[in-house]
Amino acid sequence: MPALLLHFDDESAAARRLAQACQLVSACVEAHRFPDDELRLRLPVDAQGKLPEQLVVYRSLDRPNDKLIELMLVARQARELGARRIILVAPYLAYMRQDIAFHPGEVVSQKVVGRFLAELFDAVITVDPHLHRISTLDEAIALPHAISLSGAPMLAELIARHHDRPLLIGPDAESAQWIEAAARVHGLDHGVCTKERRGDKQVEITLPVVPVQGRAVVLLDDVASSGRTLAVAARLLLDAGASSVDVAVTHALFAGDALAVIQSAGVRHVWSTDCIAHPSNAIEMAPALAQSLQPLLS
Amino acid sequence: MPALLLHFDDESAAARRLAQACQLVSACVEAHRFPDDELRLRLPVDAQGKLPEQLVVYRSLDRPNDKLIELMLVARQARELGARRIILVAPYLAYMRQDIAFHPGEVVSQKVVGRFLAELFDAVITVDPHLHRISTLDEAIALPHAISLSGAPMLAELIARHHDRPLLIGPDAESAQWIEAAARVHGLDHGVCTKERRGDKQVEITLPVVPVQGRAVVLLDDVASSGRTLAVAARLLLDAGASSVDVAVTHALFAGDALAVIQSAGVRHVWSTDCIAHPSNAIEMAPALAQSLQPLLS
Repeated sequence: MPALLLHFDDESAAARRLAQACQLVSACVEAHRFPDDELRLRLPVDAQGKLPEQLVVYRSLDRPNDKLIELMLVARQARELGARRIILVAPYLAYMRQDIAFHPGEVVSQKVVGRFLAELFDAVITVDPHLHRISTLDEAIALPHAISLSGAPMLAELIARHHDRPLLIGPDAESAQWIEAAARVHGLDHGVCTKERRGDKQVEITLPVVPVQGRAVVLLDDVASSGRTLAVAARLLLDAGASSVDVAVTHALFAGDALAVIQSAGVRHVWSTDCIAHPSNAIEMAPALAQSLQPLLS
Repeated sequence: MPALLLHFDDESAAARRLAQACQLVSACVEAHRFPDDELRLRLPVDAQGKLPEQLVVYRSLDRPNDKLIELMLVARQARELGARRIILVAPYLAYMRQDIAFHPGEVVSQKVVGRFLAELFDAVITVDPHLHRISTLDEAIALPHAISLSGAPMLAELIARHHDRPLLIGPDAESAQWIEAAARVHGLDHGVCTKERRGDKQVEITLPVVPVQGRAVVLLDDVASSGRTLAVAARLLLDAGASSVDVAVTHALFAGDALAVIQSAGVRHVWSTDCIAHPSNAIEMAPALAQSLQPLLS
């Protein structure tokens, strides 16, 4: 039996694009939520009640807790029903930020969730997983195939198509390497801000020493979550004379009122990849994901 | 170091009652929810950054998915910080209903969640876990100590104190054994309805052949979820001439508008145990839980 790609109802479009790019059959996991919030899931088995030996599970892990439980229910039951090798394609991977205990007793969630995924799956493919103090994904998810792609080159290409001489700005020092890599491909000017965080929604930003007067600036980041950092940076850039400010991110998380906050700061375009389904999606990751997935399918 | 009881902010009262009954020190897990729904948890470590070797984690698993991830984060980190034996006290246990695949490919969530808990904890104590086709909790959670108590005797005692000659009615055949056990303690009259379910919120009920005219009826069940079954039964009982209908349940889940639905059907009192915190709580489970927990603490 050929490999099967499983997806969930709310992510069908991106999952089907990946299935098509890999010439895989795709099928939806039937999900029902009971009034008490428990989930009833049903896997698309064949007439003999079996699944193929190779499975790909497509699931972006924004708003992660429900989805992590879903993944456990699916992966463990799939093994009972015949799956022997299960590859997780999680374009957005959750809980990768807390990689150390900042205070005594803090849960190092990256390590716990990484181990959880490594126990459930045989391989994991993700995009821009926001690693800080570790350099490769397999340090968080101990699997022979823990593959991390980047959306940055594709975002840079979109920006280069859209603007004549854009200036790429990263909102904080953490994004420096990532911005440089994206800028290099098209030889774009770039710089990074310095950032001080004072709570979930309060940030203080200092612009880099780069002339912005009259420039079309694009704020580039791996993820837009609360949107506060991007909004503060956009205001500073416009005050400093930028002719326009756009935002390009890999992961359109946009929690709560984040998008409105960004737009009211004077940002013109918001572009994102389809790692998380969102109206701002401008780049399809299927071709890049397929390139990493294909060699794993025997 | 003596054992420590960990609890969460939203369940402090019931957890502290249990700690007191077992003469344990209790402490709250510090929890923060980020705008993107990820959790940051901090465990109450000592000055050396350590936890005691024995931990009790108190967590009722209503609205379970978030809480199951919380339990994983807590239990796995606790082992890193010195805990060697971790006992879960989950007065309400989730995912115990789906114990077989009713249709091909369905996830047998009881088995998957049971295994998950057995991997995280050394012992589990719960109350009325709604087991159908299996008879003991250790078939679902493979641990030497998987202990299941019942709230029924205490509910029956409360009912016997409140009414002179009450009639206990179970809403469906599944509750028969449980109702009989509760009724036996105080020699109460009893019977069970037959039920046909036609969806999450649609049920058809037939009353048992027991005279209800002029009787103070108490509908007794392990859990009130959507409240539809109890509401339909209450209406039938009042139509058949019952002088009053009360409801007594172990688990006050009351999803969505369940309580309003029950009350608008003419139900007078709603009583529950404190397994799930709710305004209807009339019985404290701490003494019974302590009796099971104490022998497990070395």
